[in-house]
Amino acid sequence: MAGDPVTGCLIIIGNEILSGRTQDTNLAHLAVELNELGVRMVEARVIPDVEKTIVDTVNECREKFDYVFTTGGIGPTHDDITADCIALAFNTVLELHPEVVKIIQSREAPPDVMESRMRMARIPKGATLIENPTGGPPGFQMENVFVMAGIPIVMQAMVTTFDRKRIPGGDPVRSRSIGAYLSEGKVAVKLRAIQEEHPDVDLGSYPFFRQDGFGTNLVMRGTSEDELDEMLGEVRQMILDCGVEPISE
Amino acid sequence: MAGDPVTGCLIIIGNEILSGRTQDTNLAHLAVELNELGVRMVEARVIPDVEKTIVDTVNECREKFDYVFTTGGIGPTHDDITADCIALAFNTVLELHPEVVKIIQSREAPPDVMESRMRMARIPKGATLIENPTGGPPGFQMENVFVMAGIPIVMQAMVTTFDRKRIPGGDPVRSRSIGAYLSEGKVAVKLRAIQEEHPDVDLGSYPFFRQDGFGTNLVMRGTSEDELDEMLGEVRQMILDCGVEPISE
Repeated sequence: MAGDPVTGCLIIIGNEILSGRTQDTNLAHLAVELNELGVRMVEARVIPDVEKTIVDTVNECREKFDYVFTTGGIGPTHDDITADCIALAFNTVLELHPEVVKIIQSREAPPDVMESRMRMARIPKGATLIENPTGGPPGFQMENVFVMAGIPIVMQAMVTTFDRKRIPGGDPVRSRSIGAYLSEGKVAVKLRAIQEEHPDVDLGSYPFFRQDGFGTNLVMRGTSEDELDEMLGEVRQMILDCGVEPISE
Repeated sequence: MAGDPVTGCLIIIGNEILSGRTQDTNLAHLAVELNELGVRMVEARVIPDVEKTIVDTVNECREKFDYVFTTGGIGPTHDDITADCIALAFNTVLELHPEVVKIIQSREAPPDVMESRMRMARIPKGATLIENPTGGPPGFQMENVFVMAGIPIVMQAMVTTFDRKRIPGGDPVRSRSIGAYLSEGKVAVKLRAIQEEHPDVDLGSYPFFRQDGFGTNLVMRGTSEDELDEMLGEVRQMILDCGVEPISE
């Protein structure tokens, strides 16, 4: 696509995702939201709650991508080690952040409970907070790394606070899609020709199986609305030339 | 846990997952199935349909993990480049595999459609097939790399053909879980103590929010049933000591 895209990578931290116990939904949500800010999700990794793995992955990814996002591991229990790992990755220390301390103290609790909760006020030195509109402890941003909660409703709330001032991106990717009761094999040759004419648009082909038959959805993704419309017209014509009616997805 | 676990990594290949258009469900399914074979899923990556990225990721992961699994990109269209990338990664070539040719030819089609479908018969030299019980073209295994379809029903069908002869694993991980209407903060100190007593079991703590209140699920994962039962007893007692009734998840 025209110009280098601004890139994002999501690091999903959590044994429960890798064991299959919990289904991640944060990737799909974040990808759509970031696209509106002009950041293209180009990789995601799911890694366990293991210090060395987290530190190494964060350090590799923050060099490789414009923005890195993490989800998971910022709660009050022993298996919440993300903040510690980010501090290690940036060779800095954790400090009690006065604003977070205040948020946590605003809910009364016995001393031992308060002490555990206070783990969530430990923020790497130099980081800025990511507001948590659900009222709980915030996430934080350390350079190009954004550290968020893993619980979808909390993570989604944090993402609503992002804007182009904090995350300057490029052009959002727009898409067009059209389907047909045609096998991928039937359209493969013509699709390749259309793709080759429009190198700045990604043309994806996704088979589907429904009760009333099988077919293919064709999805075009690019930053130029005009070129997308042009390509959509060609794909629609290709479907008509095969003697079937195009369908919306 | 006792002994080095046999490790697995899933590489999810597909722009549609990274764009947020499609929700991956293959990771959770494969993680559970592999565990029964004694293979622990320890990392997953989601990467785009980009040749260099696929080749580099496959080469990095097949060195790092005992088994690598890929999903996506083995259809007949121009954006299906996984087989080509695997051949490149192993520095070998693609050859028409006679068994796959036969499967594809068993469904009649005009010459141009047949030619596109025949892309799916291109298998890296030296690979063995992964049977596709849905009747479509198979996946393939190249050394420790297992290449499968991305469509969940097809991928799941391929996974049913795996056994310990093909994929020798170690001990499956077993789990126990128990929940309580207690905040994570309330149980954090005691949980840490229980975890430290049982270094071979992973004790995870997952907050939940329901209409009738919020609480925490505690999940123990390990290979020794006896140690899991012992830990479960301690966690149950901890919950009772907090003055609330344990609940099943």
